[in-house]
Amino acid sequence: MKALVYNGPGHKALEDRPKPEAQAPDDAVVRILKTTICGTDLHILKGDVATCAPGRILGHEGVGVVETVGPAVTAFRPGDHVLISCISSCGKCEYCRRGMYSHCTTGGWILGNEIDGTQAEFVRIPHADTSLYPIPAGADEEALVMLSDILPTGFECGVLNGKVAPGSSVAIVGSGPIGLAALLTAQLYSPAQIIMVDLDANRLAIGRQFGATDAVDSSGGDAAAQVMALTGGRGVDTAIEAVGIPATFQICQDIIAAGGTIANIGVHGVKADLHLEMLWSKNITITTRLVDTVTIPMLMKTVRSARIDASRLITHRFRFDKILDAYETFGRAADTKALKVIIEA
Amino acid sequence: MKALVYNGPGHKALEDRPKPEAQAPDDAVVRILKTTICGTDLHILKGDVATCAPGRILGHEGVGVVETVGPAVTAFRPGDHVLISCISSCGKCEYCRRGMYSHCTTGGWILGNEIDGTQAEFVRIPHADTSLYPIPAGADEEALVMLSDILPTGFECGVLNGKVAPGSSVAIVGSGPIGLAALLTAQLYSPAQIIMVDLDANRLAIGRQFGATDAVDSSGGDAAAQVMALTGGRGVDTAIEAVGIPATFQICQDIIAAGGTIANIGVHGVKADLHLEMLWSKNITITTRLVDTVTIPMLMKTVRSARIDASRLITHRFRFDKILDAYETFGRAADTKALKVIIEA
Amino acid sequence: MKALVYNGPGHKALEDRPKPEAQAPDDAVVRILKTTICGTDLHILKGDVATCAPGRILGHEGVGVVETVGPAVTAFRPGDHVLISCISSCGKCEYCRRGMYSHCTTGGWILGNEIDGTQAEFVRIPHADTSLYPIPAGADEEALVMLSDILPTGFECGVLNGKVAPGSSVAIVGSGPIGLAALLTAQLYSPAQIIMVDLDANRLAIGRQFGATDAVDSSGGDAAAQVMALTGGRGVDTAIEAVGIPATFQICQDIIAAGGTIANIGVHGVKADLHLEMLWSKNITITTRLVDTVTIPMLMKTVRSARIDASRLITHRFRFDKILDAYETFGRAADTKALKVIIEA
Amino acid sequence: MKALVYNGPGHKALEDRPKPEAQAPDDAVVRILKTTICGTDLHILKGDVATCAPGRILGHEGVGVVETVGPAVTAFRPGDHVLISCISSCGKCEYCRRGMYSHCTTGGWILGNEIDGTQAEFVRIPHADTSLYPIPAGADEEALVMLSDILPTGFECGVLNGKVAPGSSVAIVGSGPIGLAALLTAQLYSPAQIIMVDLDANRLAIGRQFGATDAVDSSGGDAAAQVMALTGGRGVDTAIEAVGIPATFQICQDIIAAGGTIANIGVHGVKADLHLEMLWSKNITITTRLVDTVTIPMLMKTVRSARIDASRLITHRFRFDKILDAYETFGRAADTKALKVIIEA
Repeated sequence: MKALVYNGPGHKALEDRPKPEAQAPDDAVVRILKTTICGTDLHILKGDVATCAPGRILGHEGVGVVETVGPAVTAFRPGDHVLISCISSCGKCEYCRRGMYSHCTTGGWILGNEIDGTQAEFVRIPHADTSLYPIPAGADEEALVMLSDILPTGFECGVLNGKVAPGSSVAIVGSGPIGLAALLTAQLYSPAQIIMVDLDANRLAIGRQFGATDAVDSSGGDAAAQVMALTGGRGVDTAIEAVGIPATFQICQDIIAAGGTIANIGVHGVKADLHLEMLWSKNITITTRLVDTVTIPMLMKTVRSARIDASRLITHRFRFDKILDAYETFGRAADTKALKVIIEA
Repeated sequence: MKALVYNGPGHKALEDRPKPEAQAPDDAVVRILKTTICGTDLHILKGDVATCAPGRILGHEGVGVVETVGPAVTAFRPGDHVLISCISSCGKCEYCRRGMYSHCTTGGWILGNEIDGTQAEFVRIPHADTSLYPIPAGADEEALVMLSDILPTGFECGVLNGKVAPGSSVAIVGSGPIGLAALLTAQLYSPAQIIMVDLDANRLAIGRQFGATDAVDSSGGDAAAQVMALTGGRGVDTAIEAVGIPATFQICQDIIAAGGTIANIGVHGVKADLHLEMLWSKNITITTRLVDTVTIPMLMKTVRSARIDASRLITHRFRFDKILDAYETFGRAADTKALKVIIEA
Repeated sequence: MKALVYNGPGHKALEDRPKPEAQAPDDAVVRILKTTICGTDLHILKGDVATCAPGRILGHEGVGVVETVGPAVTAFRPGDHVLISCISSCGKCEYCRRGMYSHCTTGGWILGNEIDGTQAEFVRIPHADTSLYPIPAGADEEALVMLSDILPTGFECGVLNGKVAPGSSVAIVGSGPIGLAALLTAQLYSPAQIIMVDLDANRLAIGRQFGATDAVDSSGGDAAAQVMALTGGRGVDTAIEAVGIPATFQICQDIIAAGGTIANIGVHGVKADLHLEMLWSKNITITTRLVDTVTIPMLMKTVRSARIDASRLITHRFRFDKILDAYETFGRAADTKALKVIIEA
Repeated sequence: MKALVYNGPGHKALEDRPKPEAQAPDDAVVRILKTTICGTDLHILKGDVATCAPGRILGHEGVGVVETVGPAVTAFRPGDHVLISCISSCGKCEYCRRGMYSHCTTGGWILGNEIDGTQAEFVRIPHADTSLYPIPAGADEEALVMLSDILPTGFECGVLNGKVAPGSSVAIVGSGPIGLAALLTAQLYSPAQIIMVDLDANRLAIGRQFGATDAVDSSGGDAAAQVMALTGGRGVDTAIEAVGIPATFQICQDIIAAGGTIANIGVHGVKADLHLEMLWSKNITITTRLVDTVTIPMLMKTVRSARIDASRLITHRFRFDKILDAYETFGRAADTKALKVIIEA
């Protein structure tokens, strides 16, 4: 089969690989219908992700059709249309039982990282019963690709951890795909104010189209002051960090209201300053989280009932044999205005 | 009346001052029966607390008898025995209604800081109805002095924010009075393991007497490694920071289990490093809080029902005219083994 | 001044009464701009509310202008435009501090019940600082009348107690004004399915216009079966009882899913059967609540940010001298299709 | 093998049965070391449990040694000592993922009910990985038998659902084994007052020994009045129903404080009156629950750390060949003062 393979920092190729087979009794093999590219895939290609060895098939998102199942799989049969979670979950370990699938002792984020992933014609899914989700007949399968990773990430790490609530104020620092996913899902809780912060005017404009009440251009270095002005000097109840660098984490500290929550989504490569001399008495909460995808079933209901239009995140589409073009388009997002690209079988 | 007055960095004196009077309709004047000294008073005397001007009567803890009340006070009458909260709360503003009394727009921590405090024969208490608590007949009033500040601080900032739960594991970094207050109140939730961390062998010994299951001497620089060993490599569900310096906050980051909570109590003077490159994917929570004293009524019930023996924190007693000796004893705690000192009228 | 007075069961009149004055230091007197009629007023007129004595001025909703304030009132001044909560709250007692304003030991629902109410030119408001809410300049004051009682009631007793959540399923049994208030506010949490149940085709049609996904006509006695069919046999996660009779409470028991919540809003005059032989193992929750109006500030934000259009509940308008006509219209709602009627000064 | 078999209402026998074998890939067969008898077993023998057919081996509690495992079992190996949950849980279905193991679509309470149970030399356990719990070396295995059902039931259905909290007041109506299990586990949350209510003086005396602060003899019909007197007329924050008849559920309604919770544990055979005309405005919560046993791992930690002494519930011990005597002793508990009886292999 054809597969997109990571061949060490800076190197990727569309290669021929053997079709995967079930290895454990609870494995399934899924034929991919649609997949996509994540910012994390670009990190891997830069060599930033030590757990991902050269030779790995990339990709941890997608929808497909079950091809074969191991003897212990009970929830799925060949022919079932399924959504693939980016997180593999055994359902049995202490972490899975606490809903922390991301820390599953035999799973977590392994697809396209420690084991071969979804940017291929077929993929082996471990712990299939608890790592795949049935797609109802008639659903928009393309839109559901957004539920493999990006929507649950924005929702769980940003919105739920950030305790977004009716009438509250929210700032989302970073208006890229993940910040926009937080924006879409934050509206499930009807906050009164959602302020997008970004350097890129196009992304701020998209933020407004997606429902932000305000947009703050951070290129002048005064983003925090602008947010404070927009909130009458109080700051925001929820600050969502959706970039992953010290400067944006600093903005969150500068704009958080007393009693508020800073919900970190960003993948950080270095430490940040924590201004406890300012924050120790401010009754705030800071959270971190690797997405658990426990909310996929719920998000599927909100997508199906049209409470969220997940398809708005999709800007480009490619056939699988053009996946290198898809990477090119996604990698130059500032120019191409790409958010999420769909790659179809 | 006699009062202990802050006269600028390094200077304090026992002085004669006029007896306070009610200024606002909701003020009360309270005759002090017993008060105590807080670590924060020592910070003021060093000049670390900018809001406290020279000439201020110190003290924000104590029990007493209501002397006079303003016309809008409805819950108390002269002669009532009362516990004084270290936090003044109007009960009306947005923060008070959210239970964030520490951020009351016309109150918060003002006693012995922005207005004259309790280390005197009399004290004026603003917002008396919502800043004083009735002492039931027959209660141990000396023990209740611990409810003005230290027990609610340990409980709210450490135990509640830290989500201590039955069967969970807890590390308390700092076994001084505030760490011990967290230790006493943590046991209200029956965690399976409570590890005290400190440099001082005496304080660790007291920690064991007060119910810690383990004690870690941090003087060798390997505190984190010891805590990890004691938890089978998992780390703790709750790490309570009860010192207020970057080094102890670092220990908390090193020992927190995936899914755990770092609850900061310490008063920090400088920023700390936050290792987001390690923590971003660990599903942790960090909290800060200035005590709100919302739990005083509940703690009073647990003290009265003997679920907590608050009097264990009291090591020394002085008459009010010996308050300078009390400061001397409390200030040299490493030598005197002082925890909390009671100063009686 | 003119006032609508209850003169014993079946008797009401528009009478002349002396203008009220502040009695306690924390009282305010408010000149009424707009008020409305509540179903509870009709109950009083039937003689169903024992606490309401003949001679009482009715009404517990409204917006107005502060006329005078007692000396302990600090949050309001004459001339301020205010929203009146149907619940008077001292802000000091144990219940107020727990957010249970409805059980305030010197307040609760007393307006137009135990003391004179808002269907008059002026009204005395006890505990003014914590029972009035400032109206921001430019707000739609007519719409805000819906925040005195009906919207917080639907939201607190129905939506919050019922734990409505993104993607969940909700049935609202009773599509009168209070059921519709629950419907409007339930959408703040983006449930996937909201089923209205009622006998009245017009009210079901309004339910659909207000955002219900399904409408069940209960006149045939098979409402439960229809709801079960609409939910694939699972039942609903939240069943909101918005009528107040045993038959509708029975429907809630019949349609509640395992793990679900029955949130009672209805004012019940008689006991109901509780089928514990069916429900003991079903992991359900049943809640009751008299509205606390703690969510008025939050709802004000959602109304101002256009997340809710409260004005949709208003069907008729009358001048105050036509208040008897307003009662007539509101009392024959099945014919007049009245939801909420506004009475203007 | 020997097994205790239900042969229709009123009939039970110790019979020879074939040793069970794994049927599904995720089954395990466990050799029973210790089991016990539950009140539910007596209900089955009366013919009250329609799902339990004649010929069924009874019993849903116990500890044992894994004999064989199916090919999909990964968490256990032959020779492992295990605690058996009374609830079988697949870990995969919607209910299991929500922590509602009791409603598992292919499990729930099936042991000794819909499939053969633990009162035998061997038992087949479906979904072994998520229905068995490893017993740490050195643990008191006899005490752990209390974690199969009775302690999690008292804790989950009574204490957790009832929101028992530090300083709160609790009444437990019914001081039999399940009420006493609620009493033991309630103390994990340090309530200030725990009132046991029962007709039986011996059981009330045991309640006091187990930590109750008060005991109310309900034989005079004035239990509610006594509880109100003990709580200063306020009633209790938590009322735990641990009998299962309308009269005891009525007591709970009569003693619940405003804002309180009635947590039902009792297995009810008939409906009860719910006095909504009294409770609609009282801001109360009523919960029902079939135990999910999600708290077994946590309870195991509290037992191991000696926060609970589960062995106090054990009053009698029998060898397995005397199991009919054990039933006789347990069935006449009023005379024999039996709480839980241990039956050893």
